[in-house]
Amino acid sequence: MSLTGKQLIGGNFSATGPTTFFAKNPATGKQLECAFHEGTSEDVDGAAKLSEECFDAYRNTPPQKRSDFLVSIANEIMALGDDLIQRARAETGLPEARLVGERGRTVNQMKLFAEVVLEGSYVDARIDQGNPDRAPLPKPDVRSMKIPLGPTAIFGASNFPLAFSVAGGDTASALASGCPVIVKGHPAHPGTSEMVGSAIQQAAAKCGMPAGVFALIQGSGVTVGTALAKHPLIKAIGFTGSLQGGKALYDIAAVRPEPIPVYAEMGSTNPVFILPQALQNEAAALAKAYVDSATLGVGQFCTNPGLLLGLRSAEFDGFIQEASAHLSQKPAGVMLHAGIKSAFESGIEKLTSQSAIEKINSGDAGSGECEAAAVLLKTSAANFINNRHLEEEVFGPSSLVIECETKEDMLNIARNLTGHLTATVHGSEAELLENQELIQILEKKVGRVLFNGFPTGVEVCHAMFHGGPYPATTDSRTTSVGTAAIQRFLRPVSYQNFPQKMLPAALQNENTINIWRMVDGQMTRDSI
Amino acid sequence: MSLTGKQLIGGNFSATGPTTFFAKNPATGKQLECAFHEGTSEDVDGAAKLSEECFDAYRNTPPQKRSDFLVSIANEIMALGDDLIQRARAETGLPEARLVGERGRTVNQMKLFAEVVLEGSYVDARIDQGNPDRAPLPKPDVRSMKIPLGPTAIFGASNFPLAFSVAGGDTASALASGCPVIVKGHPAHPGTSEMVGSAIQQAAAKCGMPAGVFALIQGSGVTVGTALAKHPLIKAIGFTGSLQGGKALYDIAAVRPEPIPVYAEMGSTNPVFILPQALQNEAAALAKAYVDSATLGVGQFCTNPGLLLGLRSAEFDGFIQEASAHLSQKPAGVMLHAGIKSAFESGIEKLTSQSAIEKINSGDAGSGECEAAAVLLKTSAANFINNRHLEEEVFGPSSLVIECETKEDMLNIARNLTGHLTATVHGSEAELLENQELIQILEKKVGRVLFNGFPTGVEVCHAMFHGGPYPATTDSRTTSVGTAAIQRFLRPVSYQNFPQKMLPAALQNENTINIWRMVDGQMTRDSI
Repeated sequence: MSLTGKQLIGGNFSATGPTTFFAKNPATGKQLECAFHEGTSEDVDGAAKLSEECFDAYRNTPPQKRSDFLVSIANEIMALGDDLIQRARAETGLPEARLVGERGRTVNQMKLFAEVVLEGSYVDARIDQGNPDRAPLPKPDVRSMKIPLGPTAIFGASNFPLAFSVAGGDTASALASGCPVIVKGHPAHPGTSEMVGSAIQQAAAKCGMPAGVFALIQGSGVTVGTALAKHPLIKAIGFTGSLQGGKALYDIAAVRPEPIPVYAEMGSTNPVFILPQALQNEAAALAKAYVDSATLGVGQFCTNPGLLLGLRSAEFDGFIQEASAHLSQKPAGVMLHAGIKSAFESGIEKLTSQSAIEKINSGDAGSGECEAAAVLLKTSAANFINNRHLEEEVFGPSSLVIECETKEDMLNIARNLTGHLTATVHGSEAELLENQELIQILEKKVGRVLFNGFPTGVEVCHAMFHGGPYPATTDSRTTSVGTAAIQRFLRPVSYQNFPQKMLPAALQNENTINIWRMVDGQMTRDSI
Repeated sequence: MSLTGKQLIGGNFSATGPTTFFAKNPATGKQLECAFHEGTSEDVDGAAKLSEECFDAYRNTPPQKRSDFLVSIANEIMALGDDLIQRARAETGLPEARLVGERGRTVNQMKLFAEVVLEGSYVDARIDQGNPDRAPLPKPDVRSMKIPLGPTAIFGASNFPLAFSVAGGDTASALASGCPVIVKGHPAHPGTSEMVGSAIQQAAAKCGMPAGVFALIQGSGVTVGTALAKHPLIKAIGFTGSLQGGKALYDIAAVRPEPIPVYAEMGSTNPVFILPQALQNEAAALAKAYVDSATLGVGQFCTNPGLLLGLRSAEFDGFIQEASAHLSQKPAGVMLHAGIKSAFESGIEKLTSQSAIEKINSGDAGSGECEAAAVLLKTSAANFINNRHLEEEVFGPSSLVIECETKEDMLNIARNLTGHLTATVHGSEAELLENQELIQILEKKVGRVLFNGFPTGVEVCHAMFHGGPYPATTDSRTTSVGTAAIQRFLRPVSYQNFPQKMLPAALQNENTINIWRMVDGQMTRDSI
């Protein structure tokens, strides 16, 4: 398909601003075809108004129709075929196999939310029957369910051009909830964004959805994002990216005349704790798995294991040597764009310039503008505790090994952690049972605790919780991966003493849609 | 019991600050016995540290023990007997029958949360079983449940000295969730606060709870509240009160190094829409019920019907005349304290000084310092639309009747409403069916929609949603009344590939605690 370089608003491509920007191939440094118009606050205002205008129509679509829409989006994305993969590859430098896999994740995610919508119990329907004869006052009939928040702004992430971008998890969960979506495309992959946006637009048209249900606005600066976050018709924000970017949106939203929720997933360094017995039998395999996880996707994952703690010992030295040897064999990787590459390099420089930080080894550096070498660093527990900034994320293929003198060092570091997406413990089951205190500390610090694994790879399922205390996210109560993500875009409403006919289907006596409901405090699918 | 006038921290009464304040009887204007020490930031820091220290112990108490603790609090409050009622009466001017009723609500609420804890399904347990043979990658075993956020600061409200104060709904839901609680007592009823605080302390001691599980800090200014909202160990805030107070806490929390959730319920004017047929048969009864609701508790309810809209007609004139006549018979009411009384009077003065606002009638003005007359005002739809501030709450026994020329006036006002706790529609069932658009608008603006009732009286049940979009609250996704309120103090955590023995009981294969769980996407109480 040919790209327009314009904004997709109300089902049509248009542009109000004269300025344009181009995508660049990070592998070759070459500018890619199509000049993309910078979105303007006029574009944002137009999209927000269309979004609000269609909100009632969209939120009231029958579950089957909304579910079909999500499946149709998945189908339209697949119908883009190899063109999408090739454009994404050119814009991100990510390998083809990875992008094909990511596309699979994206369409499966859309289909999973289609199932959630169809199943319907996500609305958390509750019915407390009234009792007009109760003394001293009659008991009212009170019924509640969740309804969507309203027009939502979603920010595409650079590191997942499909699964966390225009039709990614945030868009899928917001559309599933009944919220119209306006996406701010990430400027590193505008062509990919436009293609996926067109697919959503095709699906909306085929499914008879209102044109305002989806919009895509491109931009290389902060104009579009700021205008979206400030717009009075926008009722929630979804974001995946840097702490700086996410916190800026949070701050804007908090000082609006009407503050709104901001779900910003901002990454973390995901500490990995190696207990002694983990090193007894499988130090070499563990070291290899660690380096593979830390360098996967050129380290450009929110769940990259950026910190690894072990107890000083011959076994741990052996582990480090194995990791070092494996790392040295790693080829250079093409990072997503020049900005990420230079931030990674300056982050590593800042670390290695400190005398207390030792560079264990690095991989091949390559020669391209965006190519980066994987780096393994090492420091002492004492130095880590005295330098809080060592906990901060250096986005890319690096990890910092922390050598602890005692188990108390480990616990002390765990106690002083800020919020992370994940924490991992490696050891025997017996060791885990002996280290309950460590688990108790970690579950207060993170959104997901792993045993004998690595945090990269976030399964899309019902029980996945991809989030965590600040600064990993701006809202520790919610997840951005898995079916529970739909809850972010909903709020409950009670209906008191409503006639049956006026109640939503989910709350009528007869449970025609066969959802789970809490009736007088008991979970049931029975009708009343 | 004799009052100490000190802070209750770590199970002991102590005071660090030299300054004191006194409670005053709003009915007599007389100062009440006991000098209360102003809490200091040192007190807050001490309480927060004890709170954090006991957090693990408290959150890990077995459900039965935590449930027993809540029931014990209820029993200890009852054991205070008439002393509590008399002190509350002296401090608030509220009638004895109301306080006895409010005490019943308070202890029943505590017992209801005890049941929720014991039943256990509130943790939203989810289990997705793994599949090591899945290709291309093994499927991990992922299980999630909600855990408490951490030490919580709760602010007592002036208008419910028992049910929304020291042992009110926020404290009950936070303690039920497993969060230790520090209460900032409302300065208008410090003696009531200390008595109830002592009851909680007694219950904690009897049930073997750690002393840090509860603290009460008194203060007449903003020192204690500000210190609590800024304290790094405090992880959530519950508040019921004014827009000014709630928004100030929200603003403090949003700019902390680690932002935290603020659940501030700040009241609203709760519009009531009267459709024509509602006036056909029962205008007089409706007028009486309206005035009774607007003057209940001297109008000091968040759900006071402060706005009433009707269509200009002979019937509506009749309704207003009936309301006026009923209002004129209303005796003066003693407001909670001099500050509320003067804010009410200046609010009414500001309204009545406008030529477009007509004073329909007022009740008896009384003569006491805190006595207030109920007031009924009237304006046109056009004037209301042009004066957005008329939607703001004037806390007290007043209500503004808005005379609409057309149904479109009503819809237009509804469309332009900010967030409210409730909206009410009176009419026949046939009329409601004809006015679906109005309901569609209202459910987007409020937390609870009522049919043929009045919003005062908030049933404590599973389906109650007491909240609403800003400025009614700072978080429209949550409720402060009803069992769903426990969700405010929880966040999910996933456990990946954990051995059975290391999983919390809620997530082990065998469902020994018999809770509802989502297993591979299906709700069940079966074991795996």
